[in-house]
Amino acid sequence: MSSIKKVVLAYSGGLDTSVIVKWLQENYNCEVITFTADIGQGEEVEPARAKAQALGVKQIYIDDLREEFVRDFVFPMFRANTIYEGEYLLGTSIARPLIAKRLIEIANEVGADAISHGATGKGNDQVRFELGAYALKPGIKVIAPWREWDLTSRETLMAYCERNNIPVDFNKKKKSPYSMDANLLHISYEGGVLENPWTEAEDDMWRWSVSPEAAPDKATYLDLTYEKGDVVAINGERMSPATVLTYLNKVGGENGVGRLDIVENRYVGMKSRGCYETPGGTIMLRAHRAIESITLDREVAHLKDSLMPKYAEMIYNGYWWSPERKMMQAMIDQSQEYVNGEVRVKLYKGAVHVVGRRSADSLFDEKVATFEDDAGAYNQKDAEGFIKLNALRMRIAANKGRVLK
Amino acid sequence: MSSIKKVVLAYSGGLDTSVIVKWLQENYNCEVITFTADIGQGEEVEPARAKAQALGVKQIYIDDLREEFVRDFVFPMFRANTIYEGEYLLGTSIARPLIAKRLIEIANEVGADAISHGATGKGNDQVRFELGAYALKPGIKVIAPWREWDLTSRETLMAYCERNNIPVDFNKKKKSPYSMDANLLHISYEGGVLENPWTEAEDDMWRWSVSPEAAPDKATYLDLTYEKGDVVAINGERMSPATVLTYLNKVGGENGVGRLDIVENRYVGMKSRGCYETPGGTIMLRAHRAIESITLDREVAHLKDSLMPKYAEMIYNGYWWSPERKMMQAMIDQSQEYVNGEVRVKLYKGAVHVVGRRSADSLFDEKVATFEDDAGAYNQKDAEGFIKLNALRMRIAANKGRVLK
Amino acid sequence: MSSIKKVVLAYSGGLDTSVIVKWLQENYNCEVITFTADIGQGEEVEPARAKAQALGVKQIYIDDLREEFVRDFVFPMFRANTIYEGEYLLGTSIARPLIAKRLIEIANEVGADAISHGATGKGNDQVRFELGAYALKPGIKVIAPWREWDLTSRETLMAYCERNNIPVDFNKKKKSPYSMDANLLHISYEGGVLENPWTEAEDDMWRWSVSPEAAPDKATYLDLTYEKGDVVAINGERMSPATVLTYLNKVGGENGVGRLDIVENRYVGMKSRGCYETPGGTIMLRAHRAIESITLDREVAHLKDSLMPKYAEMIYNGYWWSPERKMMQAMIDQSQEYVNGEVRVKLYKGAVHVVGRRSADSLFDEKVATFEDDAGAYNQKDAEGFIKLNALRMRIAANKGRVLK
Amino acid sequence: MSSIKKVVLAYSGGLDTSVIVKWLQENYNCEVITFTADIGQGEEVEPARAKAQALGVKQIYIDDLREEFVRDFVFPMFRANTIYEGEYLLGTSIARPLIAKRLIEIANEVGADAISHGATGKGNDQVRFELGAYALKPGIKVIAPWREWDLTSRETLMAYCERNNIPVDFNKKKKSPYSMDANLLHISYEGGVLENPWTEAEDDMWRWSVSPEAAPDKATYLDLTYEKGDVVAINGERMSPATVLTYLNKVGGENGVGRLDIVENRYVGMKSRGCYETPGGTIMLRAHRAIESITLDREVAHLKDSLMPKYAEMIYNGYWWSPERKMMQAMIDQSQEYVNGEVRVKLYKGAVHVVGRRSADSLFDEKVATFEDDAGAYNQKDAEGFIKLNALRMRIAANKGRVLK
Repeated sequence: MSSIKKVVLAYSGGLDTSVIVKWLQENYNCEVITFTADIGQGEEVEPARAKAQALGVKQIYIDDLREEFVRDFVFPMFRANTIYEGEYLLGTSIARPLIAKRLIEIANEVGADAISHGATGKGNDQVRFELGAYALKPGIKVIAPWREWDLTSRETLMAYCERNNIPVDFNKKKKSPYSMDANLLHISYEGGVLENPWTEAEDDMWRWSVSPEAAPDKATYLDLTYEKGDVVAINGERMSPATVLTYLNKVGGENGVGRLDIVENRYVGMKSRGCYETPGGTIMLRAHRAIESITLDREVAHLKDSLMPKYAEMIYNGYWWSPERKMMQAMIDQSQEYVNGEVRVKLYKGAVHVVGRRSADSLFDEKVATFEDDAGAYNQKDAEGFIKLNALRMRIAANKGRVLK
Repeated sequence: MSSIKKVVLAYSGGLDTSVIVKWLQENYNCEVITFTADIGQGEEVEPARAKAQALGVKQIYIDDLREEFVRDFVFPMFRANTIYEGEYLLGTSIARPLIAKRLIEIANEVGADAISHGATGKGNDQVRFELGAYALKPGIKVIAPWREWDLTSRETLMAYCERNNIPVDFNKKKKSPYSMDANLLHISYEGGVLENPWTEAEDDMWRWSVSPEAAPDKATYLDLTYEKGDVVAINGERMSPATVLTYLNKVGGENGVGRLDIVENRYVGMKSRGCYETPGGTIMLRAHRAIESITLDREVAHLKDSLMPKYAEMIYNGYWWSPERKMMQAMIDQSQEYVNGEVRVKLYKGAVHVVGRRSADSLFDEKVATFEDDAGAYNQKDAEGFIKLNALRMRIAANKGRVLK
Repeated sequence: MSSIKKVVLAYSGGLDTSVIVKWLQENYNCEVITFTADIGQGEEVEPARAKAQALGVKQIYIDDLREEFVRDFVFPMFRANTIYEGEYLLGTSIARPLIAKRLIEIANEVGADAISHGATGKGNDQVRFELGAYALKPGIKVIAPWREWDLTSRETLMAYCERNNIPVDFNKKKKSPYSMDANLLHISYEGGVLENPWTEAEDDMWRWSVSPEAAPDKATYLDLTYEKGDVVAINGERMSPATVLTYLNKVGGENGVGRLDIVENRYVGMKSRGCYETPGGTIMLRAHRAIESITLDREVAHLKDSLMPKYAEMIYNGYWWSPERKMMQAMIDQSQEYVNGEVRVKLYKGAVHVVGRRSADSLFDEKVATFEDDAGAYNQKDAEGFIKLNALRMRIAANKGRVLK
Repeated sequence: MSSIKKVVLAYSGGLDTSVIVKWLQENYNCEVITFTADIGQGEEVEPARAKAQALGVKQIYIDDLREEFVRDFVFPMFRANTIYEGEYLLGTSIARPLIAKRLIEIANEVGADAISHGATGKGNDQVRFELGAYALKPGIKVIAPWREWDLTSRETLMAYCERNNIPVDFNKKKKSPYSMDANLLHISYEGGVLENPWTEAEDDMWRWSVSPEAAPDKATYLDLTYEKGDVVAINGERMSPATVLTYLNKVGGENGVGRLDIVENRYVGMKSRGCYETPGGTIMLRAHRAIESITLDREVAHLKDSLMPKYAEMIYNGYWWSPERKMMQAMIDQSQEYVNGEVRVKLYKGAVHVVGRRSADSLFDEKVATFEDDAGAYNQKDAEGFIKLNALRMRIAANKGRVLK
């Protein structure tokens, strides 16, 4: 265990990663460099500096990655209408590759030979961090204390803190019974009473949104402007990617939008119950489909739909930094050239309703689609041949006596 | 045009198909047999008998197909979590193959050489009727008057009625500005102001659901019981398939659930704006995913997800009676063996929230998934090897100098 | 039929398209512009000029499109390892979009309002020509004489020739009993005795290759050099795309390589028996897979494989000029960045054997793969965790009593 | 290491697994039960009995599994036209799940708490054995000596033999420089000079087939009879599954058929060069496609093709005993109902040529497909509408100014 000289730790400033700082110093006898990122988790990151210093850390990185997160990770993912297992908007999954990338950049800057993180050995996050790290720097050593140490119960952890003078009152608030994770796209809850998938989540668990019952009695309308598949303005006002998502989270949360309660399949092989709040993402998913509905060719849209589950799986499983994800992204991005225009959504007590969409690049052709006289834009007689030839193979089979059961 | 002797017409009892009766008699000089089905459209079918008799029809078929519709068409489709283009629950699409089948059965019974329907040459329904008919009886002749006649405006149609003594006051109510279609799964609206996709649908258009704003201020909870992927009981009470859907439509509609406003891509090549109310279907889609989430293997679920868009396309395009749909159904049905258990949903002002799921066939393993001590059910150290080998190909590539861009 | 002023005809110089020139002049009373392309069919195109002139054509286009054909159509298709229905190398399919494109370019140059072609109403080629034309110039009128006229038997056609002084001895050679089509990628045979799929093709049918039995008793070795997925040199000598394919056709044909006898499914709904000679293509397909086998990431390769049938279907069905084909091409081309290196193949009496492959961009890592001591490049113990976690979902299911049948 | 009482070992009778017997006895202090199967590897299995007895084994299982192997594993796989990465016929992969199943059956019979095998930690076979074992008996312990012990070089292994009186002259023949594996479907070669993928395999490596050059100068014709997708007779003579494959291997090998030299991607993450002889399988793959070409619906065939790579991956990666493989098999088997008839193939100097196919269930319709007069079986005018509607979406896009690049 002694060959490591410098390790870059993804440091939240919380108790667990503070213990890891000390544990790494002790067990690997190495210098620990901490890295704390603001990816929109909604907590100050600057306090992490003093905490790290108190633990004897000399090199401390604190970065605001919110714009990069939304621009280079969240938005590309939403171009594909990505959802995992029909429900999950991948809020945690999409943040991990950015952390992995930054860990490796810092490791390169400071000449570290290892990185470390606070993810457990049961979850997906360890996979996402480590696959990213290995893809970006194949010789890197990864230290995952939760897979190594014996501090596996709250008691042993607390005892360790006491022995090592790690202040345990980092959070004065009562400890949440849930394991949580947050970034600009979502906040997640696992554990506690949620471990029984029949038990309804308690209303005071949710932090980012009001309950639908408590939401305003009057609907809120929003106009989203799209360029090449990304939201660039809301109600006519241009905004940066992170500002767009921050704004949508706020308005969505006020209207009770974006709560989700699911059982999902982890990459490591088990089922897990999670609750998520993704107000802005929930709005963007519906709105993006709506703008695509008038600007995308049918077969392009269907091809995207048929590949989406695979793309979602790649992100969920931690393969953002893989060649296959990039290959698929090339196709997705190519498809968005004309995905421009406006979508109007109505938010009301937990639901998002799309009520209008328009675009200078619309392929909706009123002249053809109309129930009224189309002035010859479409020849109804063409349909007969279309149907006849599409039916031919089935007619031949039936003629040969094949029976449909 | 004279070789046809008997034609079976899908007859709604409305003005358009009444005109078709007369037009077929006149233009093909043939006997017209009418077929009217109750598939849950919410209107009496018996009055169609007198109307047909008044038009000189001698053989009149009036069938209640509601149970068959839900049992053999709607439920099998929902086993696949089927949605077209990410939004549409295929309410119209799934009813057409049943009508096609019954038309052909009647044609066989009465010795008819043709069938006829009232679908226009611009839509999907002509395709669905005719592909089904050709697949089931390859030598059948199909007469689609809207593709043949010159009664293409309201005026010419009315003049024809007058000339032929067809009473035009069949519906005393003011004519709806929308083209509508209904069955137990949904009601649809097209045309009128909807032809501009930016215009919000007017609130008085919707017929099956109250607006979310008008829905009760208190949520409604439902427990759905599943057996092999189908709902067999609600709140503990066993029900037939059609009763299940009728019940869910009622409760869903009362809570403003199931409104949808989309632009979809028709098989005949154009985009079309449609509004739909699918209260029961909207509940069933979410609930079915929820029961699958604890009972289905991960890879089975992902395989189903990756094939669903193709399956939805088959149904949308009218290929229910095709060998490829049946082949895929064999796989879907095989996957549902253990999809048993209960799902609890909460309906509130237009939204469906899944709040609990349980099953004797659950694959959710609390011992493995827990954040607490798992008593050795899972060895966290296994994760290291899992990640290392999954990363190997990317590490080799990076070692060879491949750069990720 | 009189509104057409100028029509551009895809003119082979053969009897059928000569009749079409006259028929168009007569029936549409319009000017006919002929277009004859050398796409490597192996016949002189210049003689078409005199024949067209004799038919009164004033504007005559004769183009050598061989390089464009291979560079922009054949090579991009081979990057995907494209085969239709497991066997067919799409030799005819891939040439049609180029003809369609050139027809439209000429129509634009001469201000024509229509194009015409000699494909029958039963085949795929009409679809490929016309889908391309409509995609590139949506208002173009397409005249397909075989779908319109009554010259449907050899006799009526001959009588027409006599009436119109069209010389029928264009080909002095005895008329082949087969319908044939050729370009640089292949030559095809349909019809005649082939219409019975049990009858073996006669040996004197084949034109481009010797029979395997007649091929040399000594194998021929070739080294193919790849850059970004395309062959750029053979046996170390750089060549243009058309030269590469010409060379491979010659050597392949001499070794009896590339004969294929299949029953395929046409887009218009029927099964059809065809025989093909594709010497160069057969070599390139195997060699391209071989160079990819050492340079492509596993998951990229598998993703390509899973999409290939869809891509092949697009080309077969005539959707080269569609947005979905271009979207997929973006992905395919992106994947080829590192597909560089050399492949050695052995041609012998009808078979192609890959015997070696090497690349500066190889991902084959002898240190990892070796059966000998790998000096720590791979830790065999990692496999245990890898297997354990991959098995976890199945173990949980078995523990819950799920029985595998 | 002491908790194991009984272990069932997959025992070949060779040196390596003989060492494992002793090593297990020593290191786990447990009873070893050996299991040796005849799956057509071409070596006597009975001699394994004496060898095992000499090592002190009391319970010895020797089974002839050839019929089960072909009937329940090889044939179902060939129904899908399965090939991995475009080339590999999965000869090794498909045998492993049968061994895993039998190991578990024996473990259940003798009350063993563990199984063991001689596969290394670098290969796919360990994964295939163990995934199968865990799926069938989740609590089983697996001992993989190659991942545990220190006998990793030839020298240490030989020293171990000497210390433990294990006779090393089991094989009097000179040790092959290749790592080989054989069963009724194929024989494989890895290692040695093959570790350089540019080096051509030496001709004396191949054991099952003559070189194409040494094959007869006269072609051999075979008629294969199919029922529900499986070969049931050759040249009119009914045979059991194993007899079919034995026969085809013999005739194929005599004609130099079935040699393959590839670089493949292992599931554990590395590329590996392998050479294979699969004479019978190579014939069956081509012939099965041929019988499907006349009996399978187009869309069914295309759906099978699009899923085949996924199915092949499942088998290659060891997921035969997974729910997703069984789900997919349900679909594949359903598709084979009408895959009946005869295929004629010609074998000549390394190549397989399909020359004819016929079936009472043929969907090939000569009346429709003919180039001659079809007596109205097909209306060519239908093609116009077919093309027009298929082109509509592209025409609308072009009309709206979308430019194809």
